[in-house]
Amino acid sequence: MQKGHQTWVFDSLPVIIASSAVGGPFEAKSALAKDFDALHGDLWLGQKSFEKAEKKLLEQACEIAIDKAGMKKEDIQFFISGDLMNQIISSSFAARTLGAPYLGVFGACSSSMESLALAALIVNSKAGKNALAAASSHNGSVEKQFRYPTEYGSQKPPTAQWTVTGAGAALVASEGDGPKVTAATVGRVIDMGLSDPFNMGGAMAPAAVDTITAHIRDLGIDSSYYDVIATGDLGKVGHEIAAELLQKHGIEIPKKILTDCGLMIYKEDQPVFSGGSGCACSATVTFGHFMNKLKKGELKRILIVATGALLSPLSYQQKETIPCIAHAVAIEA
Amino acid sequence: MQKGHQTWVFDSLPVIIASSAVGGPFEAKSALAKDFDALHGDLWLGQKSFEKAEKKLLEQACEIAIDKAGMKKEDIQFFISGDLMNQIISSSFAARTLGAPYLGVFGACSSSMESLALAALIVNSKAGKNALAAASSHNGSVEKQFRYPTEYGSQKPPTAQWTVTGAGAALVASEGDGPKVTAATVGRVIDMGLSDPFNMGGAMAPAAVDTITAHIRDLGIDSSYYDVIATGDLGKVGHEIAAELLQKHGIEIPKKILTDCGLMIYKEDQPVFSGGSGCACSATVTFGHFMNKLKKGELKRILIVATGALLSPLSYQQKETIPCIAHAVAIEA
Repeated sequence: MQKGHQTWVFDSLPVIIASSAVGGPFEAKSALAKDFDALHGDLWLGQKSFEKAEKKLLEQACEIAIDKAGMKKEDIQFFISGDLMNQIISSSFAARTLGAPYLGVFGACSSSMESLALAALIVNSKAGKNALAAASSHNGSVEKQFRYPTEYGSQKPPTAQWTVTGAGAALVASEGDGPKVTAATVGRVIDMGLSDPFNMGGAMAPAAVDTITAHIRDLGIDSSYYDVIATGDLGKVGHEIAAELLQKHGIEIPKKILTDCGLMIYKEDQPVFSGGSGCACSATVTFGHFMNKLKKGELKRILIVATGALLSPLSYQQKETIPCIAHAVAIEA
Repeated sequence: MQKGHQTWVFDSLPVIIASSAVGGPFEAKSALAKDFDALHGDLWLGQKSFEKAEKKLLEQACEIAIDKAGMKKEDIQFFISGDLMNQIISSSFAARTLGAPYLGVFGACSSSMESLALAALIVNSKAGKNALAAASSHNGSVEKQFRYPTEYGSQKPPTAQWTVTGAGAALVASEGDGPKVTAATVGRVIDMGLSDPFNMGGAMAPAAVDTITAHIRDLGIDSSYYDVIATGDLGKVGHEIAAELLQKHGIEIPKKILTDCGLMIYKEDQPVFSGGSGCACSATVTFGHFMNKLKKGELKRILIVATGALLSPLSYQQKETIPCIAHAVAIEA
């Protein structure tokens, strides 16, 4: 199963039998709105806090995926989820609702692919017949926790990104129809010494490049093997840095193949600075948009390289730089 | 590999080829002091913050385990770690130092066994030749984040517990000498409606009981199969509740078999209220004390049931109750 240094090849081809993406009001106006299964006009989802709203988004994403598979929540054997909230409360409270055996993960915005990689590992190694992978974020809860409450209206530099309000889920199973999870590359922590929490894309780009390089090296493939290589949420600034770094590493990825979920999700006229971010960015774009493309036959092989900035507000205050990571998962129709 | 609903049986018997436990000044006076590999007289470990001190503890635990195995940090294929800090910064910053492909986990104080279960899964399924599992906590960093800075000197009720300052690590490999990881039971989230953050043991006891019950049911064994069944950090209050609940479930575990890491670690005259807690509680007791007993032949089969309270200060402020979980790992000499 292990190939090279840090890549898992899933020989038994675990299937994503169902997936889902849900979003908030800003996502309802996004470029990928039609790929969401549910969109909420109310940022609060009728809840008393942004945190409770985020939990609802995650619960709904899980429900929809389970529903699409024609299953019940009792059928879910393992639930693997992560989010950006302190002590990943969104995931743990959703796990309480779901009732399935639960493994909480944290890889910041890379949690989407960390969850999916572990779900595929569980199914591939016959440690479970199915596993539900999920991740969520909420613009209000994340901005409040990591930066300032949005109500303050504080200004942001153009390198800043817009946290996606939403959740995505993918139900991986040993049997059934759907795209297959073929491989995963577990990322290493890369820290190039950047410390600006308003330029996450720039900080995370080297981690994405490290993981893409490892994936290609471990599998002995050419980057043109994939129709799309999509980083998680580097945004404009990080995407350009990643493209340059890849070139320096001698990895030429055509512009039409290398993209970024944070660049794709919103429309040009939405005021998102450098692009989208948050666990829900790669989660909704992958489990909504890309899964639809794979099912329609418009894409055959994709590599999602979810990026995560592993800082905390406290580590920033204590003048630490930002450790970053990227986990890559290959999905084939 | 899957047996029953939520248990993994590791047929290839992954080996814990080395393990380590490090602690702080309070642990140096504890009942299990002799089982620690390193003990620090300075709660700050010469660092400028408790958080940086916690990271040092975790890094040292990893170093010692790697050293004992006669390996270098470059030989570590996967690092799996969790802690209680917001965004698990202790683990992620230690992962930066280590440089190995990294999977961050969060199960609060159950992170020790969540890490170990995943490390064993990786090795058993040939997704890696080795994986280093670790967890840490620091009394100063945890009290400050979850309750009050210790400098305030605020009083605590007798149900409160004392967060262990320390870290534990276990290096799991496909070959070598040492105790074997034979099985793991992934816990479900259990929430009995308790909301008092000063009575974690009481809140977590039902989760421990649920996982022990599942483990015994899934494997079709009697609880007397184990020489020791040690819950993570229920303390006096939670331990008594767990013992009662097990009886109600018709599971009779002799008093000499059922114990709790939070009860074992400190001396009777140390002012720890109901007992020890924190990720480092089950991590140091298991990877220090119990591993020594297994290697000396004084114990043959143990089941560690690490318990976790999945709340955050914010979820408490928002009047949520405490979702709890327990992950169990069986280790045999």
